[in-house]
Amino acid sequence: MTTHVIRVACADEAGLVHKITGVLYRHGGNIVSYNEYVDAPTKQFFMRATFVTAQEAGAIVPEVRALLARGAMVELAPTGKRPIVVLATKEPHCLGDLLLRVAYEDFPAKILAVISNYETLGPLVERLGFPFHYISHENRDRADHEREIHACVAGYKPDYLVLAKYMRILSPEFVARYPNRILNIHHSFLPAFMGASPYRQAYERGVKLIGATAHYVTNDLDTGPIIAQAVIPVDHADSVADMVQAGRDGEKVVLARALKLLLEERIFLHQHRTVIFE
Amino acid sequence: MTTHVIRVACADEAGLVHKITGVLYRHGGNIVSYNEYVDAPTKQFFMRATFVTAQEAGAIVPEVRALLARGAMVELAPTGKRPIVVLATKEPHCLGDLLLRVAYEDFPAKILAVISNYETLGPLVERLGFPFHYISHENRDRADHEREIHACVAGYKPDYLVLAKYMRILSPEFVARYPNRILNIHHSFLPAFMGASPYRQAYERGVKLIGATAHYVTNDLDTGPIIAQAVIPVDHADSVADMVQAGRDGEKVVLARALKLLLEERIFLHQHRTVIFE
Amino acid sequence: MTTHVIRVACADEAGLVHKITGVLYRHGGNIVSYNEYVDAPTKQFFMRATFVTAQEAGAIVPEVRALLARGAMVELAPTGKRPIVVLATKEPHCLGDLLLRVAYEDFPAKILAVISNYETLGPLVERLGFPFHYISHENRDRADHEREIHACVAGYKPDYLVLAKYMRILSPEFVARYPNRILNIHHSFLPAFMGASPYRQAYERGVKLIGATAHYVTNDLDTGPIIAQAVIPVDHADSVADMVQAGRDGEKVVLARALKLLLEERIFLHQHRTVIFE
Amino acid sequence: MTTHVIRVACADEAGLVHKITGVLYRHGGNIVSYNEYVDAPTKQFFMRATFVTAQEAGAIVPEVRALLARGAMVELAPTGKRPIVVLATKEPHCLGDLLLRVAYEDFPAKILAVISNYETLGPLVERLGFPFHYISHENRDRADHEREIHACVAGYKPDYLVLAKYMRILSPEFVARYPNRILNIHHSFLPAFMGASPYRQAYERGVKLIGATAHYVTNDLDTGPIIAQAVIPVDHADSVADMVQAGRDGEKVVLARALKLLLEERIFLHQHRTVIFE
Repeated sequence: MTTHVIRVACADEAGLVHKITGVLYRHGGNIVSYNEYVDAPTKQFFMRATFVTAQEAGAIVPEVRALLARGAMVELAPTGKRPIVVLATKEPHCLGDLLLRVAYEDFPAKILAVISNYETLGPLVERLGFPFHYISHENRDRADHEREIHACVAGYKPDYLVLAKYMRILSPEFVARYPNRILNIHHSFLPAFMGASPYRQAYERGVKLIGATAHYVTNDLDTGPIIAQAVIPVDHADSVADMVQAGRDGEKVVLARALKLLLEERIFLHQHRTVIFE
Repeated sequence: MTTHVIRVACADEAGLVHKITGVLYRHGGNIVSYNEYVDAPTKQFFMRATFVTAQEAGAIVPEVRALLARGAMVELAPTGKRPIVVLATKEPHCLGDLLLRVAYEDFPAKILAVISNYETLGPLVERLGFPFHYISHENRDRADHEREIHACVAGYKPDYLVLAKYMRILSPEFVARYPNRILNIHHSFLPAFMGASPYRQAYERGVKLIGATAHYVTNDLDTGPIIAQAVIPVDHADSVADMVQAGRDGEKVVLARALKLLLEERIFLHQHRTVIFE
Repeated sequence: MTTHVIRVACADEAGLVHKITGVLYRHGGNIVSYNEYVDAPTKQFFMRATFVTAQEAGAIVPEVRALLARGAMVELAPTGKRPIVVLATKEPHCLGDLLLRVAYEDFPAKILAVISNYETLGPLVERLGFPFHYISHENRDRADHEREIHACVAGYKPDYLVLAKYMRILSPEFVARYPNRILNIHHSFLPAFMGASPYRQAYERGVKLIGATAHYVTNDLDTGPIIAQAVIPVDHADSVADMVQAGRDGEKVVLARALKLLLEERIFLHQHRTVIFE
Repeated sequence: MTTHVIRVACADEAGLVHKITGVLYRHGGNIVSYNEYVDAPTKQFFMRATFVTAQEAGAIVPEVRALLARGAMVELAPTGKRPIVVLATKEPHCLGDLLLRVAYEDFPAKILAVISNYETLGPLVERLGFPFHYISHENRDRADHEREIHACVAGYKPDYLVLAKYMRILSPEFVARYPNRILNIHHSFLPAFMGASPYRQAYERGVKLIGATAHYVTNDLDTGPIIAQAVIPVDHADSVADMVQAGRDGEKVVLARALKLLLEERIFLHQHRTVIFE
């Protein structure tokens, strides 16, 4: 018996669940978890099911697709440890947390490499046993810098790129190479405080909660579809530096939570929003 | 087209979703929301679906039941405003909050009456337009007191009883008349601080979070299956009275949240735990 | 023995606590709670102390002021139930919650009247025993409408105005009549989603937490100094209407919390931020 | 100018703040942060102040003590990075998080060594550059095992011991050697689920929130004074293993938060409760 995950997204119509589960049933599949959502305003159907079967599962996808209208998304999602590459700059908290989870806990990722535009994080990464690539952005233009990063990433063939406090803006050309495959953590409760220095912005506005937001990277800065968010209380006595420090725990926990959802293929993109089966 | 809710709980087996949704499909039902959970340790299947159909839905339940092993629970759940009776003692916050929700907001309850063992809350209840019954417990034994309450309740035929800070313990005989139909709010984060004066217990233990727990009433005090919980931060400067005051917001919000889940038939009891489709 | 609250805000200098508490000591005051904050970037000192004394307290303020540089704020804050007027529009949840707290719980406010630009909330207000004034905004310009509201408010002489989901924008002229004395609840996690329909904006952005913000009203819409904020989790299945409903509990709890802080004189304004001694 | 922290705990009396700050003032001290709390039920006064002075601070403590009744606690608290020894067993999440904070972030601890009763965590500790001692508990009695641990700890002279998921119960004799100097993280929302397997207990009780509690270690298991607590939502679909995994983020964040409070000398013990100036 092996376990599979099937994902379907298509226009809603009567009988979808019955038809799709019929295919699984005929292939000896027993469903162990099943999530479904119909988005009423757009009449769109989303489904994710985990099933076990003793039979070969390869024929399931074309059979399900044959039942659905054209344009339906049907896929057997990969399971197990998913290969990723992490980009970071100088801050160790999100990166270190991910490295520890992958190295010592039961986290569904395999970190193929860490790339940074500074040397700072090299010792941390290498001590914990992961490859580290220092690709400086200095004295070169962005296209040239991104070309080298892309060449490095391409050599690893990761499923996803994770920006663990990578503090440079990626060009549309770079983002286009990894459509819906780049995850970022932004250190604010988006859409508040987009752009640079969100904790300083938060301090100046005098908010009583600061936040962290994990989101897909798109061409528009800090506006990609949101996956997970958290907040942390602050008060008047917290300086910008205090907020930076307090915010780290939110950032690292939210990034890890979002990455797990992504790697377990629990997220569907729907227009500018995410449908997530936790 | 009318909307229906169907609920199924039974031993898990291959093809259940396919079979059940087949019945809905043949009756012209289009599923608009669907939740399913298989409890792995006990191999128990739970399902709640909302569907719309232009056909008569009455035949669906026996047809689904015919597909399942004996002992399966299959029911078309009631929808709309559900009739309830509320029991309270002297505190107005949970009761008042419920009355306002029912009187002025879109809450799925119809409050048939409020019963209290004190006169205190009468003006509040009557000003907001609900019947109030004062049934004192003084100078009589518990059986006699409960007999009068039961007679009063029985005249209203509610679907559920809600204890909105009713501070007397109900006898097993009384509870047995309303199996899994009595909802209580306890002013602690159960199982911590069962019994009397939970805020005093919390103060003395020096906890940093206080809580509220909505649960089904069973024969054992404060040990019924839990539906919803919330916590509120406190610190050393909070006296017992401060905790009582701060805790009220948690209590009323948790009680309302649990009651909504109950009235929308989103809760399944499974052994001593609740399966909840939010 | 009577209890007093003294508040001081001034430029920081060495020995301030010693000097100020010396005045209290000489007047037989025993401090029962004391909060102090020095804002490092601006070198500004804030203090709030509660003290009991058997002596007359009136001389304390000039004596403290004499010790401090010019421009210092020194005041004996009022205590007990503070008179307020509430403005609302059509939504009952924030208003109803406030009315219940004031009518039946130990909340430090006396509601002198409720004013609304619709008749909708009249029965709720009057049933709970408070004066209600319907002042329609239709068929007149804003200045004229506000003139009538102001005349009504002025007759009551409240310490503060509370906007409990009052959905019209107040003119700078109106706001200027009540400097730092108007409290508003905005149904978003400011500064995200300022202006109209914040829940619709939140839905469209696909956020995973919605919020509520209580703030002082200034001339710029939704940008006044923030007093309290809270968030509530939402997911892809929540429609705009679901968010509106879920958000109500956040709004009413945050408004009540902020109002209590305001009435107990626990808030200092400092530039565009609030210093709050909880 | 150097910065100092002074802490006072004594019976409350009129004029304490004035007297104590007078000593600081005479020694050229300027107070930059000041916290005070009077516990009304027990009439006990607690104070913590940070002040800067160009003068020698050593004389301040006896001068303050001379002003107070006998039995007053007056101390200049150490500042800067405090030396600690960490005990762990096999789980890496709390330990790894602490090591990263100390190695790469601005955290007020110096980890002198990590001691474990298993070899499991050795590579993690040593890779990050800290000494590791494996002291097995097998084939020996508890007294003998603790004697070796104590000998190892004593060689390092730490200010505090931190149990980062050390899964063995310490004897009263061991605890007595480090009065109020041992910090533990318990993986439940105490006082719920004391003792072994709290996540299993939580699962069986069917709670909707799980928790973590950092507390001082005393002779009675899991009943020491509480410093910090947090909760994480769970639902019916979470197995015990899921709760264990979800709970880790709460545990590590709460432990780090409590340890920072402890090392910055922000905690006072008062009977069985903690007074904490955050």
